[in-house]
Amino acid sequence: MKTGNYYLQDKKESGAIGNCLTGEHVHKAYERLLPFVHRTPLITSTTTNKLVNKQVYFKMENQQKTGAFKFRGATYKLMQMTNDSLARGVITASAGNHAQGVAYAATRLQANATVFMPESTPQAKVEATKNYGADVILTGETFQEAFEASKKHQLKTGAIYVHPFDDYDLMAGQGTVALEILQQEDRIDTIIVPIGGGGLISGVAVAAKHINRNIKIIGVEASDACSMYNELHNRSNRSLTFNTIAEGINVKEPGKLTSEIVNEYVDEIVTVSDTEIAAAILYMLERNKMLMEGAGAASLAALFKFHDQIKSRHCGIIVSGGNIDINMMPKIQQLAKKQNFSA
Amino acid sequence: MKTGNYYLQDKKESGAIGNCLTGEHVHKAYERLLPFVHRTPLITSTTTNKLVNKQVYFKMENQQKTGAFKFRGATYKLMQMTNDSLARGVITASAGNHAQGVAYAATRLQANATVFMPESTPQAKVEATKNYGADVILTGETFQEAFEASKKHQLKTGAIYVHPFDDYDLMAGQGTVALEILQQEDRIDTIIVPIGGGGLISGVAVAAKHINRNIKIIGVEASDACSMYNELHNRSNRSLTFNTIAEGINVKEPGKLTSEIVNEYVDEIVTVSDTEIAAAILYMLERNKMLMEGAGAASLAALFKFHDQIKSRHCGIIVSGGNIDINMMPKIQQLAKKQNFSA
Repeated sequence: MKTGNYYLQDKKESGAIGNCLTGEHVHKAYERLLPFVHRTPLITSTTTNKLVNKQVYFKMENQQKTGAFKFRGATYKLMQMTNDSLARGVITASAGNHAQGVAYAATRLQANATVFMPESTPQAKVEATKNYGADVILTGETFQEAFEASKKHQLKTGAIYVHPFDDYDLMAGQGTVALEILQQEDRIDTIIVPIGGGGLISGVAVAAKHINRNIKIIGVEASDACSMYNELHNRSNRSLTFNTIAEGINVKEPGKLTSEIVNEYVDEIVTVSDTEIAAAILYMLERNKMLMEGAGAASLAALFKFHDQIKSRHCGIIVSGGNIDINMMPKIQQLAKKQNFSA
Repeated sequence: MKTGNYYLQDKKESGAIGNCLTGEHVHKAYERLLPFVHRTPLITSTTTNKLVNKQVYFKMENQQKTGAFKFRGATYKLMQMTNDSLARGVITASAGNHAQGVAYAATRLQANATVFMPESTPQAKVEATKNYGADVILTGETFQEAFEASKKHQLKTGAIYVHPFDDYDLMAGQGTVALEILQQEDRIDTIIVPIGGGGLISGVAVAAKHINRNIKIIGVEASDACSMYNELHNRSNRSLTFNTIAEGINVKEPGKLTSEIVNEYVDEIVTVSDTEIAAAILYMLERNKMLMEGAGAASLAALFKFHDQIKSRHCGIIVSGGNIDINMMPKIQQLAKKQNFSA
């Protein structure tokens, strides 16, 4: 590994499993989510197995409802609310998969959802969020401005805020991905997970290690947006451009709660470049006819990059989502060409 | 339905099941192919079900080995040969999925394969065919010229010719798709199948009606390449441009054997335009994150176009393949925009 270097090994081996987010918590979420979420397929590819010299299992959350794992956490978060809270409606700010996850979860649970999106949000994402049943308010030039407007609106209306990652119930919902993948293939010894704010990897790490503490959890960030890695290594984010095709993991400030969990349970964090991500998107599309978004492709990009160093026989890859703008394809192809594909 | 109009109903109801290609033949192919082919997934989509007001099941042959159903027929054809025949090698002409199917089948069965491709064949397809283990000979400006060169070469070398569709063993191999889909969902009452030369639909129709003669088989051709429809209606092909994005079903002369079978077993043939095919490709990519090629999308395009007229509660859609050049995406998007999507 180029980065990370098992820096958390000591802590992990302390044996502490679960404090604020526990394995039982994720199990409970799993049971409650059963009637609501898709049990997404676990797929394999002989070609990929040969390329990386291990058995690889892709957990296809791009085929989850709303096209990403985010629907799991949002739904469980809303299910944990009282009827009185639900009646006040929910609110969030997001230009991406969280917006759609909250919108659809609210519709399913008969709550009103208001989603603040920056004015620059592509029309297709605005439409998708509306179609899932949310009221969309377009405001501000940046995400930060939309976020602040949503907070003000919350104070005014009393709606319940659904944070995109820094929330234990939400993390428990995302962690159900780990329970499913280990049910589908119990030989998995390593799971590679993309990191944005850290909600998915927190849930996955706690749940997987609750089942088998020897399962390795490897997190992946985009090289230009590796704020979790920097935070855990006390490095500054000043050198980061936060310019990546993987907008789903382009997060400037990872969560406080998620950072603690990642620090405790995640074995390693690695980073991948946009050309590596683009090559992984194109590989999956051309070989396996599956569409992944940038964030969803980050795990496969990491496997291709580090497969020599990853000591795994049965490796799980979380394909977190598939909501990529098809207009991006020429750019993806162009980037992928730059990648000297050595996997 | 705009075309077809159940013109074959009388013949079908004569009760004749199987004469030259029989259901037993396909069952035998199924058993022999078990260790060689992928049992491809059958997927569903709530959104699609609602759009067309029926339960829809997509048989994802885009995830078959070599990315298309063609590998089934080619493999079974080669398995039926004697060792002496196999030792002489196999030969074919194709610029598409049949080339890759034969190449990989020959490799698996340790035979030499020589594939003639027209000089205009995209480099990616030439490379793929070579990578699957075939010798590729690029010759001629058109497919017809490559085909004639391959016939001459066959006479010289004594290699066995593997026809892309007009061969009973090959059809039996393709028909195994029907046995799988009906095992995966036995309520299916209608199967929509793309028609190129007619090999796939022949195998599927014979096998499905052998299991349940009430299952309706609907064939789909591209509007500008509907030569099977014309042949069965004694119409001339002069008005056809044979210019379609669905190159896998762009066939000027359907088979003699396949035409007989289609005439006897297929309930209806419908046609779809390139804009309808493009809209179906984009729909599947954006909603279900799955990549279909033009031919593979024809069945879904037909369902969207004729769903009001198709009397089915459980409708199977054969997604025949996924080998589309990603460079086509901007064109697909442009075409799809022209389609007033009314499904």
